[in-house]
Order: sequence, then structure tokens, then C-alpha cells
Amino acid sequence: MVSRRSLTIDTEKATRTTYVLGTELTVNLNRLANLFPCTGSWKWGPNGHGAVLLVNCDSETTYKKTLDSEVDEINKVSGESGQVYWYIIREHQYFTLSFSSLFLLPEHKLLKLFLKDYIMVVGTDTLTQEVPYLGGKTELAFFVEGLRFPDKDFDGLVTINLSLLEPCGKGFPETPIFTDTVVFHVSPWIMTPNTLKPVEVYVCSTNDNYTFLKSIKNLVDKCGYKLKICHEYMNRGDRWIQDELEFGYIDSPHHQFPVVLDSPRDGDLQDFPYESILGPDFGYVTRHALNEEVSSLDSFGNLEVSPPVTVNGKSYPLGRIIIGVAFPTATRGRNMTQVVQDFLWAQKVQEPIALYSDWLVVGHVDEFMTFVPAPDRKKFRLLLASPDAGYKVFKSLQNNGHGKAEMFPGLPEAISVNEILSDKKLQAENRYVQNCIDWNRDMLKKELGLDDEDIIDLPILFKVLEEKTGPRAVAYYPDMVNMIVLGDKLGVPKPFGPKVNGRCALETEVCSLLEPLGLKCTFIDDFAPYHKLLGEVHCGSNVLREPSPFKWWNLELRERD
Amino acid sequence: MVSRRSLTIDTEKATRTTYVLGTELTVNLNRLANLFPCTGSWKWGPNGHGAVLLVNCDSETTYKKTLDSEVDEINKVSGESGQVYWYIIREHQYFTLSFSSLFLLPEHKLLKLFLKDYIMVVGTDTLTQEVPYLGGKTELAFFVEGLRFPDKDFDGLVTINLSLLEPCGKGFPETPIFTDTVVFHVSPWIMTPNTLKPVEVYVCSTNDNYTFLKSIKNLVDKCGYKLKICHEYMNRGDRWIQDELEFGYIDSPHHQFPVVLDSPRDGDLQDFPYESILGPDFGYVTRHALNEEVSSLDSFGNLEVSPPVTVNGKSYPLGRIIIGVAFPTATRGRNMTQVVQDFLWAQKVQEPIALYSDWLVVGHVDEFMTFVPAPDRKKFRLLLASPDAGYKVFKSLQNNGHGKAEMFPGLPEAISVNEILSDKKLQAENRYVQNCIDWNRDMLKKELGLDDEDIIDLPILFKVLEEKTGPRAVAYYPDMVNMIVLGDKLGVPKPFGPKVNGRCALETEVCSLLEPLGLKCTFIDDFAPYHKLLGEVHCGSNVLREPSPFKWWNLELRERD
Repeated sequence: MVSRRSLTIDTEKATRTTYVLGTELTVNLNRLANLFPCTGSWKWGPNGHGAVLLVNCDSETTYKKTLDSEVDEINKVSGESGQVYWYIIREHQYFTLSFSSLFLLPEHKLLKLFLKDYIMVVGTDTLTQEVPYLGGKTELAFFVEGLRFPDKDFDGLVTINLSLLEPCGKGFPETPIFTDTVVFHVSPWIMTPNTLKPVEVYVCSTNDNYTFLKSIKNLVDKCGYKLKICHEYMNRGDRWIQDELEFGYIDSPHHQFPVVLDSPRDGDLQDFPYESILGPDFGYVTRHALNEEVSSLDSFGNLEVSPPVTVNGKSYPLGRIIIGVAFPTATRGRNMTQVVQDFLWAQKVQEPIALYSDWLVVGHVDEFMTFVPAPDRKKFRLLLASPDAGYKVFKSLQNNGHGKAEMFPGLPEAISVNEILSDKKLQAENRYVQNCIDWNRDMLKKELGLDDEDIIDLPILFKVLEEKTGPRAVAYYPDMVNMIVLGDKLGVPKPFGPKVNGRCALETEVCSLLEPLGLKCTFIDDFAPYHKLLGEVHCGSNVLREPSPFKWWNLELRERD
Repeated sequence: MVSRRSLTIDTEKATRTTYVLGTELTVNLNRLANLFPCTGSWKWGPNGHGAVLLVNCDSETTYKKTLDSEVDEINKVSGESGQVYWYIIREHQYFTLSFSSLFLLPEHKLLKLFLKDYIMVVGTDTLTQEVPYLGGKTELAFFVEGLRFPDKDFDGLVTINLSLLEPCGKGFPETPIFTDTVVFHVSPWIMTPNTLKPVEVYVCSTNDNYTFLKSIKNLVDKCGYKLKICHEYMNRGDRWIQDELEFGYIDSPHHQFPVVLDSPRDGDLQDFPYESILGPDFGYVTRHALNEEVSSLDSFGNLEVSPPVTVNGKSYPLGRIIIGVAFPTATRGRNMTQVVQDFLWAQKVQEPIALYSDWLVVGHVDEFMTFVPAPDRKKFRLLLASPDAGYKVFKSLQNNGHGKAEMFPGLPEAISVNEILSDKKLQAENRYVQNCIDWNRDMLKKELGLDDEDIIDLPILFKVLEEKTGPRAVAYYPDMVNMIVLGDKLGVPKPFGPKVNGRCALETEVCSLLEPLGLKCTFIDDFAPYHKLLGEVHCGSNVLREPSPFKWWNLELRERD
């Protein structure tokens, strides 16, 4: 955090780890440009080139925090800065430095450039500055610090130009004798799919979730990960820790660290990401809705990411972000707020897919889908909620003489298989839900390049509530797809299905679907403190995972293809 | 201009000329998405895909003109629109259509979509609309019209989404059963280098340029091109027709036409591009300076384009745009106005190079460089003004006993070779000028991938004037590099050099440099009406050229590399 990693200089090899950021000026100054092939560009891919920079979005301290990038005092440059050298060899010469960016944000808000001892050269208000030769040393080192993430108005690339000037004689301006350029790409914010190894599990403690908390603790202990509990003084009763924040990370060849994206949702958990997560080497970024109402779709249960996929020959080694919106061409309905959508699309390395989630009361994609690791095929399965699969289970129970077995056994909501199957209204509602999920299924198959064999349908029924703005769906019993995925161990909402031979038929069915993949299901009772409040295990937890081993700058990116 | 070219539909081959913009929906509506691989993307290159659209920037009429793209009446869709089909097969279904764009400009300002009979579906104020099934026909055709060129706030790509909706039963919203997307790339504005075949030559008639006009007419007649004279009622004495406008073109597989870029310079010629050039199939585009002073560097003598080049393995088959600015890292000085620079960079297909031209009083790149066709090497030569080459000619004259021969023979400015060579001040000034040109020479070699053998130095001396804002240079005698290039025939400013055996030594030298390339020099006297006013032949003329045979969408573009 305080050590400063230098970007080494190598004029021969313009590889990603040996940034050519400057060059030793040799004797024939007039023809220097030819000696050094163009380094002033940035190119994606394993054969690409160009410098990589992190946004300095963590905090130097744990208490009385400020985001480093918002700090202007010159003594606050921290370890996420890169180092740039330019060499000079003659007296009387000096440099001028300047910024440029092709995008709309004022360039001085993107980057700061310092001399050693943190004397700012360009940044904040200064876009260009002359740096005289100070005598003595033959080398100037600069420190660079990223201030902004890519966004709709900033493509992540910043150019620093440097010219070496020489006096030309009395009465004439100095003439430039050599100009060098270095292009930095700020690291995008990157999400971590369920298939990456967990590091820490986050969950809220409330006055009514003791049993749930214990179940989660048992599961996490068994997995050997760290459990972090957000206590009531901080969560103020808001248990939806999945919805308040999303963990991701930023990455460069010399450094990487996790960065929490704080949702504009801002429930009672709103202080948690900044107060409890931001710290040294743990960054923070947020986006605030502008003149837009924040809706339930802005919760990050509605923001997921797929495992690595290849679609029509195009590979997404970091996966693809998945969000839910009003269906893509709707004239009305709820959407994820535009500033967050813009931010997600601008990161570019996990090109988002917009699903249709507005048909749900809560409207989160985690209510009908998740990903689990698998040993074969694409190394994962997509799990989808499926009313059709649900009815199949119930009909099979009826056919096998279990029509009187009760859903929700022992609970006030208890209802027999026969009663469920004779409810025509429920059937119509689930046909509608199945249609909505089918559209998403088609979209996911197309956008993730999936076959039917990559998808597992979990037996889940929904019911439709008559909301003010129209009919919308909720899970009829605990929504098993809304699970926590910890390696091969799954924490699945306990469905309270009809019992056959003392075992829940829905659990049996789900286990028979998932166990062949080497997955172990632990069914967790979230009925009272989560399901009844329209959420489940996934909504009530969050997982910090290890970064992907794939380096984002090795992506072969082209324009919107 | 009035015929409407349809974009054919072929669901199998997503090539550039057979745009897959829609698909026939077959019986199994629920699983349709799988039948049609992703067409909702745009990809550069010969193996690319995606639709191409022209900005409707010409005018339907020659008199009482309006730019088509600015016209909102529904009966004004003109021939630059493309046609999109989507098929429908069932009653009770309907479409919804919507726009999206990743950029900052309001989407409705980018594109209009019409049903036949020019009923607008989306565009202007409508970003999304439902289109009910009207019965009878099984096909809907849409017409699309581009409204904006790529710019800093618009990357040229517009997406149209279409969803097919079906009622799901009483009490439920309709569900989307199929969603299709088409991405359009608006054609960039493309410049034409000197190596492309001329079509028309433009020149101004003033009350003092009769002889010059006659010389140009003779040259153009000899070449067999069309001469267009801008008369005094229109030019109001402003002869700098190079500076007021730049000719380019837009291109799509079904249509192409020239487009004039009107400079924010706005001298007395300012009405000429809109009044005299804009018309049916001749488009018009301009950019106005915002809160910025327009300087001499905004004249389009300061906007040129190179022939096709390959630089470090990267090919620029349409060449690279060249502009002049204050030197790249200067803290002060004149620049081309930001809106024009943004526009040029945003076209992307001729990635611009910024040279240093602010050392000149007038500050235009055409004062020290041009390109001529050549039969060998890269099929062109870069010509550079060179004080060193100038002094070499004069010294050689002196050494060969012509020291008393006079520059400007017969003119009041007459001065001997000996006198010129003994002028220490002039030498210092030309050393300074040579330094400035050398920096540009290095930059051009690097950015165009040129060797010294691709460059010819023309013998031209400069002098330095003490301007209010510092010393700046002008050509000492007519600046031969500021020529008009018409195929292999060059109209070169007559330099009025010292005569040897009755022939101008400077002309002899230039001919000996250019004639081996098969070029024919015609020296044109522009001394009084142009040179004395700090311009030359090139500044006083303009050439409309044929478009390049290379198609811009076949470029292999990546991000800023």
C-alpha cells in the first residue's frame, strides 16, 4: 500500500510488464523519433502493449477514511500509482507535459502526475506544465495516479505527452526536438462469478435470524472460508447484504485489490460498504442516480456475472455481467438506474446482458437463475427456476399416490399436492411465469452460447400478486435457485416440500439433479426471516471471491462485437 | 436520390451487403432465438458484419434548401435511408421498437425509423413505440435514416431493438417471445488524398486575379477536369477557397456521395458551401466553435490527408488526416478549434496526425508539406519545404559563378544570390524554420511509416516576422510546396528565382526532383494576388476527387492502436 512499484523501462520490448514509457535520448537529437517505434498507443490482447493503471480508490487509513483519489494534498499519493521515467541528457533543455483524452470528462479529473516528493506536475487544474531541467541528475521519474473508472464519458484511456524543448537562438522560440507519448488504460472494475474460489462470506445479524445465521456459519466453517458478520448497529435491520453491494476487483501487472461497488439502493445498510469495507487495499466505488427514481431493480441481487464463456467464437474469459430490466423494448416498467448501467457497460471486459426481470415483484435476476461449478462441459451449469419442472414433480407425486402429502408440512400454510394441482389460477400464473423465464432462457442461451444440456431446471413454483402497476410474480415456496455457491457446496433455501418416506420430495429432486455434478446441497431454513420478506439465502449473503487468473488486458477486444 | 435501396434479407449469410436485419418467424416461436445467430452486433473488417447507414445530409432541392436530416416532416425521407424488414406471422402479435446507443447524444437525434408512407415509428421525440399487427400482410418494412455523423459524443453505432409480443391470457401482461436487434454504423466522413483522381477544380474569381485564373483554367483544361469558378458576388473578395471548405464523401454498399465539410473559419466565402455546393446527392456538414476563438489554424489549408500508408504493420488504406496545431505539449499558442478536431478524430477511419504549424504566421500544414503520386515505393512522395535545400541551391549558384544573379528578377524585391547568402539574420531565421520542419518530418516519418527516400525536400526559404505574440515564419519567395496536384500534373507557385541560362534555377531544381517520378510541373504566377497576401496556389484552389475504392467498413479497426 505504501511501496511504489516502478514500471520498468525497456526500449526494445514493448510488452505489458516492461512499459516503454520513455527513452534515453542519445546524441543525434534531431532524428530521435525514428529510433523508437510508436509507443504512444494502447492495444488489447496478449500481443498488445500500453501501460496499465489502477484507480487509487482505496483508503490509506481504516478510520477517518477518505478515498485516496479524492484527496488533493500532495502527500497522499499511494501505492496504486505507476512510475514513469524520462531521461534527459543536456542542460538548458526542459520538458513540457500535457494530458489528453478522447472523451468528455475533463482530463484533469482522470489522472495526476507527480514528480518525486509528490510535487504535482499535471492533474486537478493543471493540464499542461513545463518542467525545467534542474541540473545534476540525468533522469526524471514521474508518479501517475488514476482518479476515475471508465464510464460512459471516459473510455479508460489517458494519454500523457512529453516534449523535450531546446533553445534555438536569441529571438526565436525554443523548438521541440523530441516528443514522446504514453497511453494508460485504467483498470476496469471486474466482477467474480460463482465459479471463483470464495475468500469471505458476508451476512447480516438481525434480531430474528439467529437460526439462519447459525446454519450459514456451519456451512462456511465446513468450507473453511471466513465469515464476516455485519452487526445490527451497522445494518439497522436491513438484512439484504446481497443487494447493497457487489464485490469486484481491479488489476494491473504490479498490483491488484478488491473494490466494492456500492449500490444506489441505499437501504439501512447504506453506510456499510464505505464504513466497513473500504480500507487499505480494499477500494470503493459508487454511482448515484441522477434525476431518476431508484427502484428495486437497482439492488445487486439483480447484478450477477456468468462464468467464462465462448459465444459464436468470441470468448469472454472473465464472463459476462447479467442484469435485469424491464424487457428490452418496453415502453414502461422498472429498470436498473442508468448511471449504474452506464458504469457496467463502460468496463467493457465483461460485456453485460440485460435480462427481463421486471415481471417479478422484487425484480432480481437471482430469483430465477444462478451458476454452479461443474466438472464437465463448460465447467458450469446454469440453474433456472422452472414452474414446468415444479409441476412435473407435483404431478409425479400425485401419480405415485402422494396426492395428500403436504407442502409446507407443519406450517400454517400447509397445503396438499392435490390441492396445488387443482388450483387453475396458480397454473395460469405459472404458465405466465414460465413464458417470462423462457424468454430469458433463450436470451441466455444466445448470449452465453449455451446448449440445453448446459441448463438445469429447478422445480420452483411462483404465484402472481396484483401489484398497483400490474400483476407480478414471487416464489410460491422458498426459491431454491436463490442459493449461495461456495465451491462445490451449495447453501440452498429449504423448500418445505411434501415429504415422501420422511424426506422432502423437492430436496430429493434438486439433489438428484445436482449431486451428479459433485455438488453438495445444504438446505437452509430461511422461511421466516427471508422468504416471507420476499428474499432468500442469496439475497441475505454476499461472497468476496478471488480474482480471476485471467488478465483483463489480454482480452482481444474490438468495437462492440 | 429518390429511389430507396432495400437492404436485402438473408438469414444465412450475415455479410455486409446482405444485412440480416430481421428473420422470418417460423412455427416454434418459443425457441426462435436459436435459429438465428446473433446479428445484433457490428464488426469491422472484410469478415465483419452489421448494417451501414448514411447520414441524410444532402438536400432534396437545389433552391430553398434545407438539410434533409434537419427536416422533420414525414414526407421528406430521402434516398439515403436503408430498408429493414421484419416478418410477422400471427394475428394479435405486435412489435415494440426501441433505440439504444452507448453514447451521450440523445438517441432520438441519431436516427429515424419509418414505416412505409413515411409514418415515423421512432426518432425525434420517440425512443420506443409499439407497432400493432395490422392484419393482412405478413411483412413489415421499415426505413431508417441517419441524422448525425460520428463525433466525440457518438461513436457512430445505433442499435434498434425489436420484440415480438404475444398476449398470455386474461389478467397477465403480454410476454415477449422473440427479440431481435440490428446495429447500424453511420458512415464516417472520409477525406480524399492528392493521389485520388480529381473530378472538379474550384477557384475564386476576384478583381485582381485574371492572369492566375487563366493559368489555372489552362492547367485544368489540359488535364481534362471540370473547372468551377466561385464568382465575386459569392466570394466577396475572399479568394481562399482551400480554407473555407474540405471535400470528402460518405459511403455505403448501396450508395455514396460527396459531402463538404464547412470550416468554422467563416470568411467572406462562408455562404459558398451551403449555397453553392449542398444539393441533391451532395451533402453538407459543419461544426461551429463553442466558446472558442476561431484562429487561422481553423482554415482547411491546415487540414490535409495522406495517401494510403502502412505503419508498423498497421494499414491505413484510406490514409491519415493531417492537421496543424500549437506543438503538441505547448501551454499556449493557436490550435484548430476543438469541435473540428473532435469531429475529425471521431470519424476513426483516417486516424489524424497533429503536426506543429503554429510556428508559421498563417499556420497551415500546406505551407510546408504536400503529397504527390509516384510510380514506385509507396506510390507517393511526401514533399517538404526545406530551407537547407534552398540554401544548397543558392550556395551552388554562388559556387558556379552566379552570385550576382537576382532573385525576383525584374520585380521591386530583386536581390542577388550573394546578398541572400550574406544575410546572417535570414540564415538564423531559416535555421529556426528548419528545426520546426524537422520536428514535423520526424513526426510524419513515424506516423506515416516513411523512410527518407519517401521524402523530397523542396528548396524553399522562409523569413521570420515579429508578430505581436512572438516571431513567426512566412515563405520568403512563392512557396512551391503549396501546389495543386491534378494526377501527374502539378500547378506549382512560380518562385521567381535567379535565372541561369534564361531559366529559373529554383524551377530547374524542382523539375529535376519531380520529373523523374513522371510528374509535370506547371509554374503558375501567384505573386501579386496570392503570395503577397501570404497564400499560394493551393490556398487559392480546391479539388473534388473521386472516392477511394477502399470501403471503410473493411478496415480492421481496434481501439486506439
